[in-house]
Amino acid sequence: MPTRRELANVIRVLAMDAVQKANSGHPGAPMGMADIATVLWREFMKYNPANPRWWNRDRFILSNGHACMLQYAALYLTGYSVKMDEIKQFRQLGSRLAGHPEYDLDIGIECTTGPLGQGLANSIGFALAEQMLAAEFNRPDLPIVDHFTWVFMGDGCLMEGVSHEACSLAGALRLGKLIGFYDNNGISIDGQVKGWFTDDTSKRFEAYGWHVQEVDGFDGDAIAAAIRAAQAETARPSLINCRTIIGWPAPHKQGTREAHGEALGADEVAATKKILGWTTPPFEVPEALRAAWDHREAGSKAEGQWQQLFARYQKAHPELAAEFERRMRGQLPHDWSATAQAALTAAQAVKDPQATRKSSGAALNSILPRLPELFGGSADLTPSNDTWTKTSRAITRDDFSGDYLHYGVREFGMTAAMNGLALHGGFIPYGGTFLTFSDYARNAVRMAALMHQRVILVYTHDSIGLGEDGPTHQAIEHLNSLRLIPNMTLWRPADAVETAYAWTAAIEHDSGPTALALTRQNVPQFARSAAALEAVRRGGYVLLDCPGAPECLVMATGSEVQLAYEAVQRAQTAGRRVRLVSLPCWEVFDRQDASYRESVLPAAVKARVSVEAGTTGLWWHYLGEAGQAIGIDRFGASGKGAEVFKYFGFTADHVYQAIQDSLSGKKS
Amino acid sequence: MPTRRELANVIRVLAMDAVQKANSGHPGAPMGMADIATVLWREFMKYNPANPRWWNRDRFILSNGHACMLQYAALYLTGYSVKMDEIKQFRQLGSRLAGHPEYDLDIGIECTTGPLGQGLANSIGFALAEQMLAAEFNRPDLPIVDHFTWVFMGDGCLMEGVSHEACSLAGALRLGKLIGFYDNNGISIDGQVKGWFTDDTSKRFEAYGWHVQEVDGFDGDAIAAAIRAAQAETARPSLINCRTIIGWPAPHKQGTREAHGEALGADEVAATKKILGWTTPPFEVPEALRAAWDHREAGSKAEGQWQQLFARYQKAHPELAAEFERRMRGQLPHDWSATAQAALTAAQAVKDPQATRKSSGAALNSILPRLPELFGGSADLTPSNDTWTKTSRAITRDDFSGDYLHYGVREFGMTAAMNGLALHGGFIPYGGTFLTFSDYARNAVRMAALMHQRVILVYTHDSIGLGEDGPTHQAIEHLNSLRLIPNMTLWRPADAVETAYAWTAAIEHDSGPTALALTRQNVPQFARSAAALEAVRRGGYVLLDCPGAPECLVMATGSEVQLAYEAVQRAQTAGRRVRLVSLPCWEVFDRQDASYRESVLPAAVKARVSVEAGTTGLWWHYLGEAGQAIGIDRFGASGKGAEVFKYFGFTADHVYQAIQDSLSGKKS
Repeated sequence: MPTRRELANVIRVLAMDAVQKANSGHPGAPMGMADIATVLWREFMKYNPANPRWWNRDRFILSNGHACMLQYAALYLTGYSVKMDEIKQFRQLGSRLAGHPEYDLDIGIECTTGPLGQGLANSIGFALAEQMLAAEFNRPDLPIVDHFTWVFMGDGCLMEGVSHEACSLAGALRLGKLIGFYDNNGISIDGQVKGWFTDDTSKRFEAYGWHVQEVDGFDGDAIAAAIRAAQAETARPSLINCRTIIGWPAPHKQGTREAHGEALGADEVAATKKILGWTTPPFEVPEALRAAWDHREAGSKAEGQWQQLFARYQKAHPELAAEFERRMRGQLPHDWSATAQAALTAAQAVKDPQATRKSSGAALNSILPRLPELFGGSADLTPSNDTWTKTSRAITRDDFSGDYLHYGVREFGMTAAMNGLALHGGFIPYGGTFLTFSDYARNAVRMAALMHQRVILVYTHDSIGLGEDGPTHQAIEHLNSLRLIPNMTLWRPADAVETAYAWTAAIEHDSGPTALALTRQNVPQFARSAAALEAVRRGGYVLLDCPGAPECLVMATGSEVQLAYEAVQRAQTAGRRVRLVSLPCWEVFDRQDASYRESVLPAAVKARVSVEAGTTGLWWHYLGEAGQAIGIDRFGASGKGAEVFKYFGFTADHVYQAIQDSLSGKKS
Repeated sequence: MPTRRELANVIRVLAMDAVQKANSGHPGAPMGMADIATVLWREFMKYNPANPRWWNRDRFILSNGHACMLQYAALYLTGYSVKMDEIKQFRQLGSRLAGHPEYDLDIGIECTTGPLGQGLANSIGFALAEQMLAAEFNRPDLPIVDHFTWVFMGDGCLMEGVSHEACSLAGALRLGKLIGFYDNNGISIDGQVKGWFTDDTSKRFEAYGWHVQEVDGFDGDAIAAAIRAAQAETARPSLINCRTIIGWPAPHKQGTREAHGEALGADEVAATKKILGWTTPPFEVPEALRAAWDHREAGSKAEGQWQQLFARYQKAHPELAAEFERRMRGQLPHDWSATAQAALTAAQAVKDPQATRKSSGAALNSILPRLPELFGGSADLTPSNDTWTKTSRAITRDDFSGDYLHYGVREFGMTAAMNGLALHGGFIPYGGTFLTFSDYARNAVRMAALMHQRVILVYTHDSIGLGEDGPTHQAIEHLNSLRLIPNMTLWRPADAVETAYAWTAAIEHDSGPTALALTRQNVPQFARSAAALEAVRRGGYVLLDCPGAPECLVMATGSEVQLAYEAVQRAQTAGRRVRLVSLPCWEVFDRQDASYRESVLPAAVKARVSVEAGTTGLWWHYLGEAGQAIGIDRFGASGKGAEVFKYFGFTADHVYQAIQDSLSGKKS
C-alpha cells in the first residue's frame, strides 16, 4: 500500500503538469494542501463517484477555488467521470475543468468558487441545509440525513469580509457538522501576508465559538487525528488551521508568491519531481497509486448502506420518504398550482392601498404553509422586509426545525448562504434586505445567477419613496444594475396582484435567482380586465388601453404605475389615444414571442414615455429615439417619501407633460 | 457645574424630541451612547466649532449613522453652525440634518454614514492619512499633524464583513491613534442579537491585534479612564467595548428593538423625561447646560495653539509648510500640467501592442514621482493590476513614509479606506482589483460618488479577454453597472494614449470617483490626427473618419476598438462611408456641448453599430432603434483569451457584418 505522502504526490504532480501544459493556473495551493486532501478524500469523506447526486453524500467546497487542480485531481483519482484527457484540457475552452471550479454535479463539483470567501459562506448554507433536513426528516434509528460539509479555504478567503459574516453566523448557530481547513501558508499574491494580515486566526475563530485545532498540514497522522476530533465535536463548527507551504516542495518557488498563480516552469517541475522521487511521464499515474486512490468500490458500498437505510425509512415512513424525495428533487408539491392560485385570488381581493412589501408578506403568508421548502430570512430587517409570516418559526442553535433565519446584519453572508442552501437541495431560500443593500451582496447575487440557483431576493424600500432614511438608503441605480446581471430576473410589481404573480413566478423559476423590488410606501390597487389579469405572468402587458390604435405608449413599473395611470387617464380624457403598459418583469417580457411583444408595444408607435423611480439608462431599448424617460439619474434626498417623490419630478403632471412632449415629437 | 449625566441627558432629550417631531428616526442609540459622547466631546476630542476645516482637528465618524441625532445634538451643543431650528427640521427635505449624516464640513460632518460598517472602514483611512502625513511632514518638536480618529459603531457595524476587513488591516498596521467605541447594547432590528450574533467581540479584536477594554457605557469615570488608556496605547488601535442599553432610560422601550428605529411616542417620551428629571419644554436647553456644553472658546484656543505651532513650522520649514497647505487644500502641484503632458507624450511614443493595464502602469510611473499625494494600493493583486511603480514604497506598521499599501484581499475595506483617505485630505488614493471584484466593494464605490470624493479605482482584467480564469473572474455587466452609479466616471481606454488621458482626467476630476477599466491582454496603438489627439479628453471622438458625410457610425471602447477599426477600414475599402468613434468615457462625452456631440455622432446617421465586451443594455441611447449592438449578455467561459473572444463573437468579421446589416436597415 502506498503511503499517504505518495498518494498526495499524485495530486502535486497532476497539478504541476496540468498547469504547466495550460501554461496558466495555480499550482501552489494544490501542492500545499495535497496531504490534507488525501487524508480527507481517502479516509473520511463520504461520497460515491458513480453517483455524484447521492443525497446523503458529504459536501466538499473549495473556497480557495483557484486551487481547482487539487479538486480535479481528486475527482479523477477517486473515480468520478473526469478523464485524464480532460485534465490535459485544463482551462481550455469547452473543458469541464475550467479555470475555477464550476458547479457541475456530473463530476461532483458542488459549487462554483473563485471569488474568495464565498465558498466558505456557501458552506454555511450547505451545513445549515443538512441540519435542517435532519431535524425535519430523521427519525429514531433512521438518520437518512447525516453528512458533513467540508470546506477548504486560503488566506484570501479569510481576509474577505464575507468570511466574518459567514463564520460568525456559523458559530452562533453551532453548525457542528461543518469542518473547515485553513491553508495557512502565509503567502498571497502580493507576497508574505505578514505585512497586511496578522490576525491570530485561531483566536478569531474561537471568538466566533468555533472548535479550533492547529496542525502541521504535511503530517497525515495529525490531520487524521484533527479530523476525528472535529467530527467528534458536534456542538461547534470546526476549523483545522493547517500550517502549510505553498508550492511545496518546489525547490526554488515553494513558500513564494511565484508558486501561486502561474506555471512553475519546466525546470522547476522537473526539479520538484526529482525531490518527490516521481519518475512517471506527465499525465500517467502508476497503477498502485491509481488503485489505492480508486474510491468507486468504497463509495458504492457507502451509498448502498444508505440505500438500505432509506428503504427501511420508506417502509416505516412512506409519506415522509416521498416528501424527502420531492424536496431533494426540487419538485414543487402536487397542489402547487392551487396554492399559487389561492395567493393570486387573495391578492385580487385587496382593495385598499397597500405597500407591495405588505402585499409580498400577504402572498408569503398564503404560500408558506403549503410549501415547506420555503426557507426565509432577513439581514436584520425582518419587520421592514415583511419576510416573517404568521406561521414562520425561526431556527435556533438548539432547534433546527423552523423555517426562518435571522441572518443578522450580513447581506453578503446571507445571500451566499442562500446559494449554499439552494445548491444542497431541499430548500427554496428567500431573504430580505433593502434594495440598496443588494450592493453589499452583489457578487453573491451574481453567483446565484451564474450557478442557475433558485434563490429569492426580497428587496424592499426600492426607491426614493422610502423617504427620510435618505440617499444612503434610497435605491437609484439598483433596479437597472440588477437587470444587467445575466440570468437574473427582477420583478417590480405595481400592486398586490402583480406582487402575488411575482412570488409564484419566483417560486416556479428554477434556473436562476429572482429579485423582488418592493415599495415601503402604499400603492393603489388597479382594476384589470380578464385579459390583463391573465397577461401579468408575461412580465409586460396592457394595463389601461385606449380606444383604437394607440398613438403613444406609456410604460411604467412598480410604484410609478399609479402616476402613469393618472396621466394616461387624463390624456385619454383630453382625447389622446394613449396606452399604459405595466412592465413588472423585463426579462420575462423579453422572452415572450415577437407577436405578443408587438401586440403590447407596437413598433409603429414612436411616441413613448417611461416612468420608473430609478436610472433611465436601460429604458432606451424600449423607448427608441423619440421616447421620453422619466427617472432619476442622481442621488436621492432625505425627506418625507411623498415630498421626495414630488421633488424629483415623479408626479402625474410630469408624466402628462412627457406624453404631450412625446406626441409632439419633442426630444427628451 | 452640571454633572456628566445631566449634560448627556441633553443629547437624550434632543434625540427623543427631534425623532418624535419628525415621527421618524432612531432614538435608541443616541440615548444609549449619550454618556460616551459627552465624555468624548467635552473632555477629550480636539475640535473648533468655529472652523470645522481645521486641518489638525480630531476626526469623528459615526459608523452607526442612524444614531445621527447624537451627532447633530453634539454639533449643536458644542457650537457648530447647526441651529435649533434645524434640529426641529430633522429628516425634512432640504435640511442639513438628514436621516443619516451627510458629509458636510460646514457643520462638522466628516463622512456620510448609514450603510453599516462602512464608517468604521472609512475611519481606517482617516487614521492612516494622519499617520502618513505625520510621517511626511512632522519635524522634531513640530508635530503639526497629530490628531486622533474616533469612531462609534454598533452591533450592525460589527456584523458586517467590512468591519473584519477594516479592523484586521488596522491591527496589522497598528494604527495607534484610532479609537473605536462599540455600542454593545445587544439589540438589532430583529431583536436580541444573542440568537444570531454571539461573537466574543473583545476576543475577536484582540485577535486582530487591537488594544481592547470593556467598560460600562453609562459610567463616565470608567469611560474617561478608558479613553485615557486608549490614547496612551500608541502601538495598537483601541476598541472600547461599552456595555449599554438601547433607549435608556425609556421605561417601556429601553433594551428593546422598539427603541431602535421609530419615535418612542409622546407618552414614553414624557415618562422618560420624568425619569431624567427633565422639565424644560421641547427644543429648549437650560442655560447652565448650554454653557457647559459650549466648546467654542476651548476650540478656538486649541486651534490657536496649533496655529502658533504651524507658524513656527512655516518659519522653520517654509517649503514643507507650503506643500502641506497645498496637499490639505487638494490643489495639484503648480507643474501638474507639465507632468500630465509628459505622461501623454510618453504614451504617444508607444508603438508596440500593450495591455492597457501596462499602459496604466507606465502612466503611473511617469506621474507618481511628481505627485506625492498619490497613494496607491491593491487588494492583493499588485502584480496583476500594475499599480506598483519603480518608485513606489509600501508603508509598513513600522514606517508610514511610503506611498503604497498592500491592502490584502479586502476590496470593500480598501475602497472604504480610500474614501477615508480622500475625506481626510492630503491624498489622492488609487487602488486596484479585477473589474469583476468591484462587486465586492460596490457600496463603497457608491459612497465615494455620493460624497464626491476623488478616489481612483484601477480595475484591470476588464472583460472575457482575461481568459482562463473563467466566468467568475470575467466582467460582463460591470462596465454598465458602474456607469449607472450617479456621479461615477468610468474610462475604458483603447490604447496607451487613451490610458494616459484617462489617468490625467482621473487626477484632475476632484468631485467624484473615477474608475479605469483596463485590459489584461495586449491592444494595438492607434494612429491619431492632431484633432483626434486633442479630442480624447472629450471622452468620445472620431478615431477614424471617412471621406464625406458618414452613412454609418461605429462606436467602441477599450479592447474592442481594434476590432471596430479593422472592420471600418474594410468597409471603407469596400466603398462605404463608415466612421469609427472611440468612446472611452461616456460621462465626459455626454457633458460636451451639443454641437460637439453632434459633430461626432450626427443625429441624421441612423445606421450605427456598438462594440464592447460587456452587456449591451446601456448602448441603446447611442444606438437608436436602427442600431446593432455587439456585446455579451451572458456569462463568459474559461479558455484562452483570444479564443474566448472569438467564441463570443468579438471579431472584426462580426463587426463588419453588423455594419452591413445596419446599413441595410436590418433590425438587430
